[in-house]
Amino acid sequence: MDLLSIKDPSFLKGMSNKELEVLSQEIRQFLIEKLSVTGGHIGPNLGVVELTIALHKCFNSPKDKIIWDVGHQSYVHKILTGRACDFDSLRQFKGLCGFPKRIESEHDVWETGHSSTSLSAAMGMAIARDLKKEKSFVVPVIGDGALTGGMALEALNHIGHEKKDMIVILNDNEMSIAPNVGALHNILGQLRTAGKYQWAKDELEGLLKKIPAVGGVLAATAERIKDSLKYLLVSGMFFEELGFTYLGPVDGHSFEGLFENLSYAKKTEGPVLLHVITKKGKGYTPAERDTKGTWHGTGPYKMDTGAFVKPEKAPPAWSSLVSETVRKLAREDKRIVAITPAMPVGSKLEGFASEFPDRMFDVGIAEQHAATVAAGLATQNMKPFLAIYSTFLQRAYDQVVHDICRQNLNVFIGIDRAGLVGADGETHQGVFDIAFLRHVPNIVLMMPKDENEGQHMVYTALNYDNGPIAMRFPRGNGLGVPMDEQLKNIPIGTWEVLRRGVDAAILTFGTTIPMAMEAAEILNKQGISVKVVNARFIKPLDEKMLTDLLDQNIPLLTIEEAILQGGFGSAVLEFAHDHGYYNQVIDRIGIPDQFIEHGEVSSLLEEIGMTTKEVVKRLTILARKKQQRA
Amino acid sequence: MDLLSIKDPSFLKGMSNKELEVLSQEIRQFLIEKLSVTGGHIGPNLGVVELTIALHKCFNSPKDKIIWDVGHQSYVHKILTGRACDFDSLRQFKGLCGFPKRIESEHDVWETGHSSTSLSAAMGMAIARDLKKEKSFVVPVIGDGALTGGMALEALNHIGHEKKDMIVILNDNEMSIAPNVGALHNILGQLRTAGKYQWAKDELEGLLKKIPAVGGVLAATAERIKDSLKYLLVSGMFFEELGFTYLGPVDGHSFEGLFENLSYAKKTEGPVLLHVITKKGKGYTPAERDTKGTWHGTGPYKMDTGAFVKPEKAPPAWSSLVSETVRKLAREDKRIVAITPAMPVGSKLEGFASEFPDRMFDVGIAEQHAATVAAGLATQNMKPFLAIYSTFLQRAYDQVVHDICRQNLNVFIGIDRAGLVGADGETHQGVFDIAFLRHVPNIVLMMPKDENEGQHMVYTALNYDNGPIAMRFPRGNGLGVPMDEQLKNIPIGTWEVLRRGVDAAILTFGTTIPMAMEAAEILNKQGISVKVVNARFIKPLDEKMLTDLLDQNIPLLTIEEAILQGGFGSAVLEFAHDHGYYNQVIDRIGIPDQFIEHGEVSSLLEEIGMTTKEVVKRLTILARKKQQRA
Repeated sequence: MDLLSIKDPSFLKGMSNKELEVLSQEIRQFLIEKLSVTGGHIGPNLGVVELTIALHKCFNSPKDKIIWDVGHQSYVHKILTGRACDFDSLRQFKGLCGFPKRIESEHDVWETGHSSTSLSAAMGMAIARDLKKEKSFVVPVIGDGALTGGMALEALNHIGHEKKDMIVILNDNEMSIAPNVGALHNILGQLRTAGKYQWAKDELEGLLKKIPAVGGVLAATAERIKDSLKYLLVSGMFFEELGFTYLGPVDGHSFEGLFENLSYAKKTEGPVLLHVITKKGKGYTPAERDTKGTWHGTGPYKMDTGAFVKPEKAPPAWSSLVSETVRKLAREDKRIVAITPAMPVGSKLEGFASEFPDRMFDVGIAEQHAATVAAGLATQNMKPFLAIYSTFLQRAYDQVVHDICRQNLNVFIGIDRAGLVGADGETHQGVFDIAFLRHVPNIVLMMPKDENEGQHMVYTALNYDNGPIAMRFPRGNGLGVPMDEQLKNIPIGTWEVLRRGVDAAILTFGTTIPMAMEAAEILNKQGISVKVVNARFIKPLDEKMLTDLLDQNIPLLTIEEAILQGGFGSAVLEFAHDHGYYNQVIDRIGIPDQFIEHGEVSSLLEEIGMTTKEVVKRLTILARKKQQRA
Repeated sequence: MDLLSIKDPSFLKGMSNKELEVLSQEIRQFLIEKLSVTGGHIGPNLGVVELTIALHKCFNSPKDKIIWDVGHQSYVHKILTGRACDFDSLRQFKGLCGFPKRIESEHDVWETGHSSTSLSAAMGMAIARDLKKEKSFVVPVIGDGALTGGMALEALNHIGHEKKDMIVILNDNEMSIAPNVGALHNILGQLRTAGKYQWAKDELEGLLKKIPAVGGVLAATAERIKDSLKYLLVSGMFFEELGFTYLGPVDGHSFEGLFENLSYAKKTEGPVLLHVITKKGKGYTPAERDTKGTWHGTGPYKMDTGAFVKPEKAPPAWSSLVSETVRKLAREDKRIVAITPAMPVGSKLEGFASEFPDRMFDVGIAEQHAATVAAGLATQNMKPFLAIYSTFLQRAYDQVVHDICRQNLNVFIGIDRAGLVGADGETHQGVFDIAFLRHVPNIVLMMPKDENEGQHMVYTALNYDNGPIAMRFPRGNGLGVPMDEQLKNIPIGTWEVLRRGVDAAILTFGTTIPMAMEAAEILNKQGISVKVVNARFIKPLDEKMLTDLLDQNIPLLTIEEAILQGGFGSAVLEFAHDHGYYNQVIDRIGIPDQFIEHGEVSSLLEEIGMTTKEVVKRLTILARKKQQRA
């Protein structure tokens, strides 16, 4: 059928399984084609084609609430709810969002991007439904990886206790973002191999009835053995113990099995967990064969071969630069240990892991635990490197405050994907880290101007032994600058003058330095001489250099690819006023007080006015002010 | 024996069980006496007297690491490690901390205050031990309540997977801070009633051997039934499934049982969970009889009767005022639902719970889940009131950003214990909330000057339907002001002039308003006329009033009982500079860039220079500056 003609999922109701199978193949082909151009989360979506169709056939969205955990697997859902025509603009500026988005469709009842929120959201919706005495199904779809996140476990505990009607779909794809970790994963592994569980269960229950009755304690316990058989045989014990009715495992690519189980689930009172086995990348050989998670989310690729369309000879990725420098230093310093919450691939820690398998810990999607494990290591004089994306560090804020910084422990936090991240959009922008870290006592926060300074900062961080130290660095690749052979220490709290000037000064760091340099060059041609400072330490500030600048009383402009409220520019304002520099022109450029949607970073920066042009404009005004004052 | 003479726990090694029982009673008597004067966490500590003695006898601290989760139950540990002589100063300014503190003793290997961190910390320590090839035991002691916190579950999952040697003591006191909640609690309940589990296990295993062998699937499954017996009978399934060896339950007040199990645990490879049943308040009748959690932590009490020493006729507590106003409004608006993460007593929600049992959700120690349940409710047009302490809201930072604010949902967050909290000290000070919320788009953040304004703000919040809104309010009681009968709406983003003045202005809110008013009065007598503004909206600012003030170009002083970095004062600085008021004297008073220890709030404020005297001093300087400019 013509996928572009779909308006809503009601057309599914009359379709036979055969027809649905044809539809599945059409959707797969559509996704493989479209994503080869735009890129996107191909693997997870190919894995849930039949599951998504089955859910939309069995339930009545949006009356029934289908909640996608993490949300990157919602493409099929978007096709079935009338958005196939928007796929050419997927994840692009002003285009279709790669995650559920409430303004896009009434069928997107919950927005995500971060993992493990779906069960709590579903609990809220189920409570609301019951209080309003409405009838509807609440159906969160959560992956096996997301289930290890603490808040998902908090939610399972609460849902099991309250016995709320809810159908949790456990989308067990045997590999979350990276090969999954943890005891829960082992349990799911047992389930996958359980085989003919229903048959065995019936047989054994019959057998048990034949055991002669015994008196006293044994009689009571025999009853409990019988109760336990259902747990035991399907190995769904874990979930049953928590109060769920466990169904499955069922093949997530078979409509027959899915419909049978969903129909049973709809009739079951209380919380149900339906365990569905799916295969990431199903139906597209290059993605199906992936064992490392490289087909989880991709850029454009050649459809026939699956070869990735890569820019020619890019400088090294920031994640590689950082992880490989840590690896190099780990050869000399046995105290260095790396920790990642489920991002060994994204954080480019494969090299470290293969060289130091005993010193590498992928703790699963568990950012809170990751941060506090690092703290525990540091109490024993180890040197933990916590590799974490800026946006996911948000989930460990309390652990950073309470465990790491309050105890002033030597943890090196490598904050990856800091600043705007582009296509992943508003749930993933790493724009809050400065604001949520700068006010925490004891922490050092820095950002390098290029990959050479980056490697020196890694060295600095791992040699620093006066408390926590964090380095933020952007998504994407370095600038291609020459790399020093010898690593060196950068004195904490020191800035660097990149360009001299007397009419005004720009204070900035990291990705916005090129913008500042370009603006200074343009202004120079207009007779305005602008100093550019690499303010590589966001905390502590270079108080000496800043005092010198304030003493000169030239206008200052701060630029940061981070939220302005409470950010670096505010630190400069605070310092100036705390030290009595009340008559000082200080202006700030950065991310305004709003969530920033998806799109190419350059388009986003243009949209919010973070451009060379804007810097030139602001500096022209500031320099004029200075002239008026002089 | 003379408890004051104890230097370290080594004296325990040679003592018999009989002697240890005498010691237990001496420690109990000591705690009951000392805490009747100072107050403190009496219930939890009376519950762990034997357990703490047993741990210090069986292990060699500090070589072996004993890690107290939450930490309020570490008093016995403090006595046994040579700190009995400091109990007169417990929780007082410059006195003994009520939680483990590394600078106090080498036996305090991990600092806490927030719950559920011990297992992650222990994991870090166990990894370090193994990498260094050292031999020692790592022994986290965690309560049944703390176990429901997501990060504890993340840690159980990871520890089970890695099979690290570790002895987790589950201190199951049948009631964490409040009667506990959730499915995990039910599982622990089953365990408690399991009775003669070891005997039954042996009997049943014998019986099973007699079942005739069966072929095919059944043979394999029969083996699995046998394996499962140990889980089933002791009902330790949950933990065994996660990879732990489960021991217990054992009576936590019997040295014999404790020593037997600890000695077995020490010989067991891999992670062990020893389930210990204790009774909060054990040995002190008033505390033992407590069913509501009022003896969890107390102020001073009369030792003989257990009557609390209360100030006469205090104004209503802030928590009561807020929760009772929500209750009143809930009578008219059925959409109002209350959510608390394990603090129904602290948040004074008992009245709400008894009147609206279906609309009250205590989700256990699970702040992340609590916040996102609120978000889920709000998507369905409900009006959730999330009652949470400032310091614990830190743990839901990502949920506030990603789920509540990003989706711009109508959640009312009641931020209790905002500002300095006193005796609980640095882990509990509510001083970061402004800095970690102000930069989040869409949120409204406010703080009332007194309980009358507080009730109007609750009304305002529950009638606001343009996104998330939070009200911070302090620990302790209101001011005793007259209360309006009729609740009214306070327009969002409006401040209030409390006192007129022309030489300078103080912008402040909440608890620091009396200080400002007093200072203004003193200055008035010195001929300096100071305006005082109740800046009750921290976000958004009252831009009109602030612009008027800036237009007058009088010196401004901001005061906030919150961390200065990124706080309210910074918001004022940002606004001034963003709007071109570069030549403006703005000075800030607040919490400096450090963690603030325990002690009476007045002493703490004195220590950090937040006093009327300081305000007067600063304003005198500022006013002089104005005169110089004029």
